[in-house]
Amino acid sequence: MNLHQLMRDLREDNGSKIVLVVADGLGGLPLELGGKTELETARTPNLDAMVREGVCGLSIPVLPGITPGSGPGHLGLFGYDPLEYKIGRGVLEALGINFQVGPRDVAVRGNFCSINDKGLITDRRAGRPTTERCVLMCKKMQTIKVPGVEIFVEAVREHRFVVVLRGDNLGDHVNDTDPQAVNVAPLHAVGEDANSQNTARAINTFILEAAKLLKNDAPTNMVTLRGFARLPKIASMQDIYGLRSACIAVYPMYRGLARLVGMDVLDAGKTLAEQIETLRKAWNTYDFFFLHYKYTDSTGEDGNFAGKVEKIELLDLEIPRIRALNPDVLVVTGDHSTPSKLRSHSWHPVPTVLCAKTVRPDGVVEFGESHCRRGGLGQVEAKYLMSLAMAHAGRLAKYGA
Amino acid sequence: MNLHQLMRDLREDNGSKIVLVVADGLGGLPLELGGKTELETARTPNLDAMVREGVCGLSIPVLPGITPGSGPGHLGLFGYDPLEYKIGRGVLEALGINFQVGPRDVAVRGNFCSINDKGLITDRRAGRPTTERCVLMCKKMQTIKVPGVEIFVEAVREHRFVVVLRGDNLGDHVNDTDPQAVNVAPLHAVGEDANSQNTARAINTFILEAAKLLKNDAPTNMVTLRGFARLPKIASMQDIYGLRSACIAVYPMYRGLARLVGMDVLDAGKTLAEQIETLRKAWNTYDFFFLHYKYTDSTGEDGNFAGKVEKIELLDLEIPRIRALNPDVLVVTGDHSTPSKLRSHSWHPVPTVLCAKTVRPDGVVEFGESHCRRGGLGQVEAKYLMSLAMAHAGRLAKYGA
Repeated sequence: MNLHQLMRDLREDNGSKIVLVVADGLGGLPLELGGKTELETARTPNLDAMVREGVCGLSIPVLPGITPGSGPGHLGLFGYDPLEYKIGRGVLEALGINFQVGPRDVAVRGNFCSINDKGLITDRRAGRPTTERCVLMCKKMQTIKVPGVEIFVEAVREHRFVVVLRGDNLGDHVNDTDPQAVNVAPLHAVGEDANSQNTARAINTFILEAAKLLKNDAPTNMVTLRGFARLPKIASMQDIYGLRSACIAVYPMYRGLARLVGMDVLDAGKTLAEQIETLRKAWNTYDFFFLHYKYTDSTGEDGNFAGKVEKIELLDLEIPRIRALNPDVLVVTGDHSTPSKLRSHSWHPVPTVLCAKTVRPDGVVEFGESHCRRGGLGQVEAKYLMSLAMAHAGRLAKYGA
Repeated sequence: MNLHQLMRDLREDNGSKIVLVVADGLGGLPLELGGKTELETARTPNLDAMVREGVCGLSIPVLPGITPGSGPGHLGLFGYDPLEYKIGRGVLEALGINFQVGPRDVAVRGNFCSINDKGLITDRRAGRPTTERCVLMCKKMQTIKVPGVEIFVEAVREHRFVVVLRGDNLGDHVNDTDPQAVNVAPLHAVGEDANSQNTARAINTFILEAAKLLKNDAPTNMVTLRGFARLPKIASMQDIYGLRSACIAVYPMYRGLARLVGMDVLDAGKTLAEQIETLRKAWNTYDFFFLHYKYTDSTGEDGNFAGKVEKIELLDLEIPRIRALNPDVLVVTGDHSTPSKLRSHSWHPVPTVLCAKTVRPDGVVEFGESHCRRGGLGQVEAKYLMSLAMAHAGRLAKYGA
């Protein structure tokens, strides 16, 4: 019996509401021995109040020592074992720009890059062009024809775009053409099996044509492709938990990820205040809300300790507006840690708080890594947070007689 | 996706160094209510300093309540699920004396014992003979021929030796002939399946011949055999983690176990000081070092609380010499607990400390069972310590996009 089947067997609909707030990359590290983390440094009276009333702990995103990307990090929080369900970067990016990836599609993430007259990459991000230029260049590439496959080219933002190949017998076991280095040429695509060779052939033709078209468009005069991926088979949250689920996220990847597990992706606005307004308006229409807050991660990735502290404090300020809606279960956590000391995602367990009428309070009075370590949830794999939320929402029946 | 495949997929070689110090049977129990354990009693300023800078926790050797032998205890620490990988005692003993067990071999551990004129065992260890006598008696048995199989008899030490049967179709599902009691006769070997019946037949013939040869050699006038085992299929640590791995252990079993997972077994010397000198000399040649310290276990098995305290203090004194090498990750733990109160291995979780630049300090200031219980690693299955060490060594890439 797997966890999802257990949920299907035990779930009950009592009309209760669950809100999952994901502060991306929430967990951190102190800059020096004896110091505090970003979250411990931040003034968070509203999150602290949640901790006093709720139960807290540390969420292990995948397994001890394993640092997740955004995909596995979020899948875990939605209750999908991130080692069982794998989502390629191409699919995530495509879903994130509202592209409806279908069963005959292979999606791949594209980057504009700059090459010199020897064909060697001089800038892997083409000097980060404006999104307007990205759209213009993608329009050019939309004219490319490759026999036997339908090709879609869609701008994402700055240097990033998505290519989707649609056709029969297209595999996704194809190497990235991005060499992840400068002063080398983009790589040739090679397929590992017959179907993937079809994909590689098509994409190599596409790249050749793109190179001709973009020849005089320096710095956006070449493209690299990475993360060839087909749509994975994945059950929806409605199917597993019986929850009408909504995503309120600003950034494409998280919207794409939510769509993949069957959430309705709402028009979130651009600010946290607008996101919460969206939440308020949609309150009666859904049972489960995933609210994504990006800036705790991006400041961490930038190595900006003070910036991350500030972004945490801004999140804290909005917590009362969420609580005012009186959700039956409110969880605040992160998909992984992004310590500004490391300037990257990390494996460190993530501070997590769950508020509901049925929690067993644990005496913890402050939201932070050290305090959560002593919390009532202990250290728990992220994939179990949904079953805990379902239980506290009164949505799970007894197992067995 | 299993943990080993995940390690293979994510591993990166950054030249960092990991040292795993295993104080065998490290965990203990207080002798009376309100008392301290051996580790809590010991004066350990250097381990305490590690705890203050590092992160600590309790390692669960196998699963809650499961007491491991040395084999599963160490396999867990090396990142092999001890319930998945099983190594028979015979193979361990053979590897430990540098016997290269092959795919057609069944290895078994032998003990000299004493029997009376009725054939009943009077001393299961034959009065613990000298190793010289053991060698002499093994030489005698090396003359034994059994049709259809090649037989190797090799002394280990005192009453212990190894027998290896080499041939086709030899199974290892054979009962121990050691009845683990006195005043009874050694047991007859019986095979559970056709191949194991071949082995049983050969070993019964061997025992019969040995009994004749040793008839007048009391107290070493009989043998018992236990732990029939073939070589298990097991990937090397190099293959899984990409680590050039070295074992620095004095005792044969631990050397054998390390060899089984592909470590180079270095000439360790006989004392801890010599072991650390070996570590220093091999520093540039390897990425991973397993340093085994036996005496915390043997004093525990002897029920010698004060002796175990003293052996812990001796280990503590050498810690600075290890730290002086500046390992990127230093882990000190045990393969299981051996409370002197119980005079045996136990299931109690084992105090563990990990030092690295990327730890999230946990405010713990002393190395001991009670303190480690409040540590940042929580209670973690031993098999995850390697993935944590790999992460802290900067040797694991992000999982997923």
